[in-house]
This record gives sequence, C-alpha cells and structure tokens, in this order.
Amino acid sequence: MQNPHSQNDLVKRFQRKRYTPEEYVAGIQSQNSVLLSQAITLIESTLEAHQQTAQTILEQCLPHSGNSIRIGITGTPGVGKSTFIEALGNYLLSKGHRLAVLAIDPSSQVSKGSILGDKTRMQTLSANPNAFIRPTPAGDSLGGVARKTRETIVLCEAAGYDVILVETVGVGQSETIVHSMVDFFLLLLLPNAGDELQGIKRGVMEMADLVVINKADGDVLPLAKLAQKQCNNALHLFPPKSSGWTPHAVLCSALQKSGIDAVWQHIQIYETQTKDNQFFAQNRARQAQFWLHQSIEQQLKDLFYKNPHIAARLQQLEPLIQQHQLSPFQASEELLKIFTNQS
Amino acid sequence: MQNPHSQNDLVKRFQRKRYTPEEYVAGIQSQNSVLLSQAITLIESTLEAHQQTAQTILEQCLPHSGNSIRIGITGTPGVGKSTFIEALGNYLLSKGHRLAVLAIDPSSQVSKGSILGDKTRMQTLSANPNAFIRPTPAGDSLGGVARKTRETIVLCEAAGYDVILVETVGVGQSETIVHSMVDFFLLLLLPNAGDELQGIKRGVMEMADLVVINKADGDVLPLAKLAQKQCNNALHLFPPKSSGWTPHAVLCSALQKSGIDAVWQHIQIYETQTKDNQFFAQNRARQAQFWLHQSIEQQLKDLFYKNPHIAARLQQLEPLIQQHQLSPFQASEELLKIFTNQS
Repeated sequence: MQNPHSQNDLVKRFQRKRYTPEEYVAGIQSQNSVLLSQAITLIESTLEAHQQTAQTILEQCLPHSGNSIRIGITGTPGVGKSTFIEALGNYLLSKGHRLAVLAIDPSSQVSKGSILGDKTRMQTLSANPNAFIRPTPAGDSLGGVARKTRETIVLCEAAGYDVILVETVGVGQSETIVHSMVDFFLLLLLPNAGDELQGIKRGVMEMADLVVINKADGDVLPLAKLAQKQCNNALHLFPPKSSGWTPHAVLCSALQKSGIDAVWQHIQIYETQTKDNQFFAQNRARQAQFWLHQSIEQQLKDLFYKNPHIAARLQQLEPLIQQHQLSPFQASEELLKIFTNQS
Repeated sequence: MQNPHSQNDLVKRFQRKRYTPEEYVAGIQSQNSVLLSQAITLIESTLEAHQQTAQTILEQCLPHSGNSIRIGITGTPGVGKSTFIEALGNYLLSKGHRLAVLAIDPSSQVSKGSILGDKTRMQTLSANPNAFIRPTPAGDSLGGVARKTRETIVLCEAAGYDVILVETVGVGQSETIVHSMVDFFLLLLLPNAGDELQGIKRGVMEMADLVVINKADGDVLPLAKLAQKQCNNALHLFPPKSSGWTPHAVLCSALQKSGIDAVWQHIQIYETQTKDNQFFAQNRARQAQFWLHQSIEQQLKDLFYKNPHIAARLQQLEPLIQQHQLSPFQASEELLKIFTNQS
C-alpha cells in the first residue's frame, strides 16, 4: 500500500486547489469533511508553508473547540478494538451524535503503517457522514504524533464532532499520552482475567475510568464474569482518583452488540459527575498546562542533545558514567557549561 | 532544636579544623566516621568552596564505591519504619555487616526537619560503631536532596558500609526517587490490608520487590495473614519485572523481631539472582544514566524558567492557554524563540 502521507503526495494534493486559512475555517465550521481532512493533512505536513497555514487555521478554530467528550480507548491486539469502536460508534450515531475516531499508534513511527490504515476496518462507520475516521499521523517521535493528534482534536471539535474517540495499542508510552489528552479512559480486556492483566503495561489499569471485558458471550460468559470480579477487586485496591470517580469493570460483546448501552451510560454519568464537581474543566486546563511544559521540555532537550559539541562530549563521558568512574552530576554540570557557552 | 545544617554552624565547624580532600579520602577509606560525617556535611553545604572540596573527595571515592546492596524502604507514617530498620539493622550487625542508614524526606524541604532527626530513634543502632546513621539533608528541591543522598551513598560505600538503607515516607515523588537509586525496594505495610493499600500512592506497590506486613503478632496475626494473601493476589496482577524477580508479601513483627531473617533471606536471593542474570549491574548503569539525564534536564529547566524574559511572557500566556484561547504548542514555540535569542 502506498504511504498516503508522503510529502510528494501532499504537494501533489495541494497543487490541485489551494484554500486560504479563512476558507478552511469556514469549511470546517460548516462541517465540510473534505476541507477538515485537508486541514488535518496540513497539520501533519512538515513543510514550513503548510505548517504556517495549519497554525493560522488552528488559532481560529481554538475558540470553537472543546465542546465534546474525548474518550481514550486502549487494549492489546486481538481484544477487538475495531469491532468495539464500530459497535459503540454506530450506537452513538443512532443517538444523533457526531463521531470522530483518531488513533495514536507508536508502531507507525517505524513501519509508517497505521492501526487505522486498514480500509476494511470500521466499514459501517466510515460509510456514515456523521462519522469521521482518521488514521494515525506518521511522525518521527511520539511527542510529535501526540501534538498532531491534539491539534486534530481541536479541528474535529470545531467541525461539530461531539464525541472524539482516541484509540491506541498497549505499547510503550502511548497510553500515557492518550490519557493526557482525553476526558475518559477506557481499557478493553479479554475474558481471560489474570493472564490478560499480566500482559497489560504497568499503570494502565490504574489510568482506566472503565474496564470493559469484551467478547463476553456464549461459552466464555462464566469466565468473563470471573474476570469482571477479579478486575473489580484489583480496581478496589488502587487509591481513589482525584476525579472522585470510582472505576468499574463491565461486560460487553461488541460482536453481539450487548453491553454497549451500559458503557455509554457509564461515560455519561462520569461526564455529569465530573462537570458537577469541576474536575472536567480543571482536568482540561491541567492537560493544556501539561502539554505546554511537555512541549517546552522537548524543545529544550532537542536544543541540548542535538548540539554537536555536547553530543561529542557526551559520547566521551557516557562510558565513564556507566563504569561508575564519573558521577552523573559532575558530568551534567560540565555539559551544561558547554551549552551555556555555545548557545 | 537548633538546625544542625545552618551555614553559620557549618562555617564554625570548619573553622575548627580544615582537612585536605586527600585527608578526607584517606579518613573515609580507613572507616573514620567523623571524617565521613564531615565530608557529607561538605556535600550538603551550598558554599562554593565546600562544594569544590566535596566534588574532589567524591571523584576520589567513586572508584572505591559500589560494593554494597542498596535497599530502599518506604511505608506510611505509623507503620513502624524505625523499629523495623532497628530490628533489621541489629540483625545485620550481628551477621558482621556494616550498615549505613540514610533518608529522603520531602517534608524536610518545608520544615527543615528530618524523619531521622529525632535522636531517640534507633538508639541501639546509633550506639554501634558499625552502623552509620545520617539524617535527611535539607534542600530546596527534591532533586537537590536526591543528588546529595546519591553522593552520600558513594562516600558510605567507600567507607566500607556494605548495606545501605535509604528510608523514605510515602509522600509525593520521594519513592520514585529512592527507587531509582537502590537495588532493592521494600514496602512496609500494616496488617489492615485493603484500607492500608488505599493509602499507598499509585505505583508504589508496583515498584516493590518485597512487601513486608509489619506488626504481624498477637491478636492481629489472622488479619495480617489475610493482608498477606490479598497483597500476593495484587502483586500477581502486575506485569512481570524486568529483573526477572517475582515480588512476594511476607509477615514480620519488628517489635518481636520475628520474620526479620526471612526478609534478609529474600534480599540475598534477589541479590544472587539478579547478579546471575546481569540485571543488578545493568540496573545500576541504567540508574547512573537516568541521573545524568535527570540532572541535565533539571538544569535546562532552571535555565529556561528562571530567565526573566521568559517568566514574564509565560505569565501572560498561561491564562490564554488555560482558557483554551491559545494552543500550548504555539505558546511553547514563542517562548523557545525568546530563549534562543536571549541566552
């Protein structure tokens, strides 16, 4: 499959027709999904001119963003994420919601592939004009991909999508990143309880606002109920959340479309409860603050570690530190001196 | 009680007698605890001259450090940490070990107090010449305190202490910091299981290599056994550790000195096992690497946020970010431009 995000492809696409930032913004606000899609492509582009247009669009969309519930969904491969998102998505569309499905896939850094790249996925959703499905942006760092996804959320909200699903696979830091850009975090599990939990990365269980045990149908139903009980026990052992919300484990069969309404009910109660106790707004403000400092620190580190004098000296010092011949603190002070004299 | 670390006091102390760095190093290597103590005071001092001497001493001690097992001990106040450390310490002394007890206490940043400041604590230990007890260094940041503690470990090891205990209370980031400077992490709990676990900070349970349920004696023994079972269940739900070690929960009564030998046995098996599978050395190299980057990033952040032009502009931008009128990424780029033009 051809990479849809190659720069050549981008350039070709924009040679066809150029819009002004104002035209993009007007298009987004009038729910034109083609212009929304093109604006997101600008966000994803590394070309300076595209980035400038993208930032202008973003600036103008920001005041019209925020009016949605952002839901993070994670689970190991094989847990049935696509089927679950399709079932939940169709349920939400039938209730009159407008739905955007985004994804953060750390593996796309290497393979340039995408967990949403498979066109056969979510067919019933992608056929619906009230659903907007966007594959993972490619990027050379997870931080860069995170930024693009956060900016895409802004555009989608400005385009009137009131439910944003951000999907991720349970690898590396991706859950933490998704967790810090959503209002509600949902963990999908298989009904094999203990074994399944062993495969979940440390800390992911603690981040969950809702654990959904999928494929709870037919012969495995008793097993799923046992898993639910064990999960509820485990959730009970975690300290209370600052949202005031108590996470639960529920059963669901995305295939048989059972339990989907209960999942949505939990999310709605969460939204009401955390809007009442102010956590919802506070959490979003905290997240914006987090991304500010995250972005500053990332740029500072780039500035430092990409400095050729520092890179060269670091390479000399590292073995000494590893062999405990030089204190890491003494080394860091020497490197900082190079930095302040150079820059 | 007078603060023993005030600069006046330090200056007075060093006016009495000044040693050369070489004299300190010789003293430390000949296990002179008075000179060790004074060298640590130099590490803790903020005076430039003291810091220079301290860094020279440290440099010369580094090649003689590392030959110990570093054990982190945490638990909420009231769990009996002092009594436990005293019981374990006396057991180790009776086996011929030499023991250093250090502490990281985040509350000392505010109160300038210390969890080890109470002179009545650990009386039997402090009377023994093979035990060295040092209160938490005062400091204006947890990072600074961490650095001083890590450097103190180096001096203690050069002085031939082969077991280093680093104590902390379960507040804020202190466990994570202790965890990243020790070989083995021990969590002390009370026998009231579920309730107790609710009070433990997120992630601490997952860091533990051994959970010790203290005060498991008399009437509460059945309760303690239940807690042990619940802990073992919870530990089982966590993903496997990269050390290859499976954490367990054990019972102990520091007051009745029962279960102490089993605790030490676990630590010894851990040491053998992780030295066999190379994790022990790899972990220490990784920790040194961690502190290098930790220290670099801390200094970079200080450089950035203490820049008056940036501080002023940040104050103007923050409300806009909080109110979602400005993207955190756009704000960070503007601030970075100020930084690179200024510095």
